[in-house]
Amino acid sequence: MAIKRYKKEDLMTYCLGATVSLEYLNIRPDKVTHVYLHSAFYESETKEKIERICRERGIPCEVNDKVFSILSQKENCFVIAMIKKYSCDLDKTGSHVVLVNPGNSGNAGTIIRSCAGFGVKNIAIIRPGVDFFDPKVIRASMGALSRVNFKYYDSWEEYEASDGTGKRHFYPFMLDGSSLLHETKIEKPFSLIMGNEATGLPASFAKVGHPVRIEHTDNIDSLNLPIATSIGLYEATKGNF
Amino acid sequence: MAIKRYKKEDLMTYCLGATVSLEYLNIRPDKVTHVYLHSAFYESETKEKIERICRERGIPCEVNDKVFSILSQKENCFVIAMIKKYSCDLDKTGSHVVLVNPGNSGNAGTIIRSCAGFGVKNIAIIRPGVDFFDPKVIRASMGALSRVNFKYYDSWEEYEASDGTGKRHFYPFMLDGSSLLHETKIEKPFSLIMGNEATGLPASFAKVGHPVRIEHTDNIDSLNLPIATSIGLYEATKGNF
Repeated sequence: MAIKRYKKEDLMTYCLGATVSLEYLNIRPDKVTHVYLHSAFYESETKEKIERICRERGIPCEVNDKVFSILSQKENCFVIAMIKKYSCDLDKTGSHVVLVNPGNSGNAGTIIRSCAGFGVKNIAIIRPGVDFFDPKVIRASMGALSRVNFKYYDSWEEYEASDGTGKRHFYPFMLDGSSLLHETKIEKPFSLIMGNEATGLPASFAKVGHPVRIEHTDNIDSLNLPIATSIGLYEATKGNF
Repeated sequence: MAIKRYKKEDLMTYCLGATVSLEYLNIRPDKVTHVYLHSAFYESETKEKIERICRERGIPCEVNDKVFSILSQKENCFVIAMIKKYSCDLDKTGSHVVLVNPGNSGNAGTIIRSCAGFGVKNIAIIRPGVDFFDPKVIRASMGALSRVNFKYYDSWEEYEASDGTGKRHFYPFMLDGSSLLHETKIEKPFSLIMGNEATGLPASFAKVGHPVRIEHTDNIDSLNLPIATSIGLYEATKGNF
């Protein structure tokens, strides 16, 4: 197989780094088709674990420095796991995070990590939106992408119609949301709805569910997107664990 | 003056980008010594504001594309404001964020932005720690560095001794903190104490003040540092604004 830098239309993607690769090997080993090790990868518990899982699962694992020179710019990347892309369905009865037109891959990864952390394992993305299979997203999630379900929708209306239960509670996060987050009881199953980094949510979301805002001073225009999302997740799940 | 890429020992630093530069021009114009505009900078309200402040304050403002080729790798950077470094004192009676050995400049910038947002305008950094005057930090803060006080200390003990009031409440954030954040009443003035990205706080902080933890699933090792800090700030300030 020819090794090439990731493009959105590819059927394969990859994990850059030992921690990230190990997450996929642990959580979705059936999606890992090949593991490359760098010759400079030191002996360690992590290396043993990676080699053991590959052996047990029959995943080819080889030392191949050339792959690293093509796929990785980082000096401290010693493992690359090749991943067969897959599609997920969201859990209709579970809680969701909905990202409307997310634009930044690092932010997407950080949000995925927080979702996994707070046990909200379903993420809807309203197009256009960053490609969750981009290696930059997977890396920023520290491999937590393996732990969540995510699905793309062409519009908010398509997502809304996909629910069908009628029991879902929608919470759009807006700078002029009518309720303060910390005074709002977040009912389950919830969908926390977050807008684009630069533009936020369209004004039409003021009529969707219960618009909330995170109170802050006017020293900043807005909190950054992963931070607003994570504060929402924290508030919605505290006391659950 | 010869224009060179930033080094830690320099007496000057700089803001990359219009928004970032405008923050310094608005909040700390006395620290801005020179503003460079790119010839491709389009006419806009922002450009007018920048030129007006420079005129009113007698800050030299010139079109000079060469400066951009030296200082900026980003294509969308059209303004650079040169900043004379300054030192700040922390407000002894105000609340603080304490960063023990912060390692990442992007994270530092995001934390600064959240501090400004939640009105906690004093940040102590325990050495070794990332240089807050690094242009990468200033840019990641979106210029909010101008709105906070920050000060370096050689050790936790030096910071602790600098207080003197005896009325400060310390909250170290630890994965094994004895109290849950959402069940803890954060008393003012507070110091939220956050460890390094990779290593967290040393175990000795278990004996400092009231160690707290943010509850999450074991799907992740820990939340990322700016997110944990911002959740702490949110919880400590909610209802204040």
